[in-house]
Amino acid sequence: MKELILGGARSGKSRLAEQRAGATQQDVLYIATAQAYDDEMNERIARHQNDRPPHWQTLEEPLYLGRALQENAKQGQVILVDCLTLWLSNLLCMDDPSFFETEKKSLLECYRQLPGQLILVSNEVGQGIVPDNALARRFIDEAGWLHQSLAAQSDQVTFVTAGLAQQLKP
Amino acid sequence: MKELILGGARSGKSRLAEQRAGATQQDVLYIATAQAYDDEMNERIARHQNDRPPHWQTLEEPLYLGRALQENAKQGQVILVDCLTLWLSNLLCMDDPSFFETEKKSLLECYRQLPGQLILVSNEVGQGIVPDNALARRFIDEAGWLHQSLAAQSDQVTFVTAGLAQQLKP
Amino acid sequence: MKELILGGARSGKSRLAEQRAGATQQDVLYIATAQAYDDEMNERIARHQNDRPPHWQTLEEPLYLGRALQENAKQGQVILVDCLTLWLSNLLCMDDPSFFETEKKSLLECYRQLPGQLILVSNEVGQGIVPDNALARRFIDEAGWLHQSLAAQSDQVTFVTAGLAQQLKP
Repeated sequence: MKELILGGARSGKSRLAEQRAGATQQDVLYIATAQAYDDEMNERIARHQNDRPPHWQTLEEPLYLGRALQENAKQGQVILVDCLTLWLSNLLCMDDPSFFETEKKSLLECYRQLPGQLILVSNEVGQGIVPDNALARRFIDEAGWLHQSLAAQSDQVTFVTAGLAQQLKP
Repeated sequence: MKELILGGARSGKSRLAEQRAGATQQDVLYIATAQAYDDEMNERIARHQNDRPPHWQTLEEPLYLGRALQENAKQGQVILVDCLTLWLSNLLCMDDPSFFETEKKSLLECYRQLPGQLILVSNEVGQGIVPDNALARRFIDEAGWLHQSLAAQSDQVTFVTAGLAQQLKP
Repeated sequence: MKELILGGARSGKSRLAEQRAGATQQDVLYIATAQAYDDEMNERIARHQNDRPPHWQTLEEPLYLGRALQENAKQGQVILVDCLTLWLSNLLCMDDPSFFETEKKSLLECYRQLPGQLILVSNEVGQGIVPDNALARRFIDEAGWLHQSLAAQSDQVTFVTAGLAQQLKP
């Protein structure tokens, strides 16, 4: 089962993903894409860590997500990735177009074939006003395209608002 | 019945809330959280007032919402609060963390137990790009958490887009 | 059939609109509202053009949309307008309130009565944080009101997220 969970900021999407991962009764590998570069980010990361069961394994992978999935996915295990938009943002901040394309392709090409269960969490960022900032527009474009590609390959897609889930697929 | 109505800017959420309040055939107390600090805001407030039936009672309460609800809620009456995001914004602009926490707690702790019917209107603000501005990020976080808490305690949650309602709960 | 397709940036709304237009097996007139004023816009326009069947007719109309629809709508044909938010943005940038009101009214008054099938595509822009910029706020207001008016007059309204459609109406 490949599942994509989308939602706005503070929509409860991470909590839903964690509940669903826990409910599988399988081993859970949590892949965190966040990089702690300031106090606010440290706080956000710590808050999320405290919410997770202590026996889950955690892997921090801000950039090479496709490789991390290929190396770690296996039958009888759930991988929860939280979240894709931070990973995308990390990639775009490298300002290296060919690196960006390689890593994006790496994820999109392995996703469907990975063994075991996968739950991907990502932020909806495209339903507000289009920003002045060119990098922000680029980020919105890339996030939207990524969501479309992954949604097309996912068995289940859920949109979370105020902690409540709407099933977009199937 | 406790109901939360969410939607983007100019989504028709206030109109839907007013229709639902009117359809109950009960007395309606309208609690406005807006503060008129400039011409644009005056205009927005006046436009909303003209849309409401003249026999509804109106109470302006930009800050002490929990207290206003506790003092005014009663069986056989509907209270319509429009809107929570402005109240949250008013609280955050006070820049007094303990005042903020007290007032937030006051609302969250009384909500479920209030007598009579309650319709809360609030803006979805977290589905666009995350802003540069730290206060705006804080506001998005607080709005998202508030929506999650209230949605969990509500009997009915509705999301409005282009004047059209989607039932998120039950 | 009058249809409104809403969705965030890069949500797949244009592709869905094109699929639905193609599926009618009727002649398709594509009305583009984009004005190519810079390289980024040229690139976005070219990308959209390459996605469309070459036998579709294309009309570029950044401002006089109501007139273009009245002159071209006919039985047995589909008109696809992509997108309303760009048209609205073009109108607002003219900074001529009476021109703006005339053109908006022209669209809203003819829409329901136009012969043939119509598919309108528009961006959801009101579910992020309210921007500081007064013109941006005005744009959000106008887009929201326009969507409400057109949704009320449409037979079908669809919201697209990550390429997946949710039926808002009927």
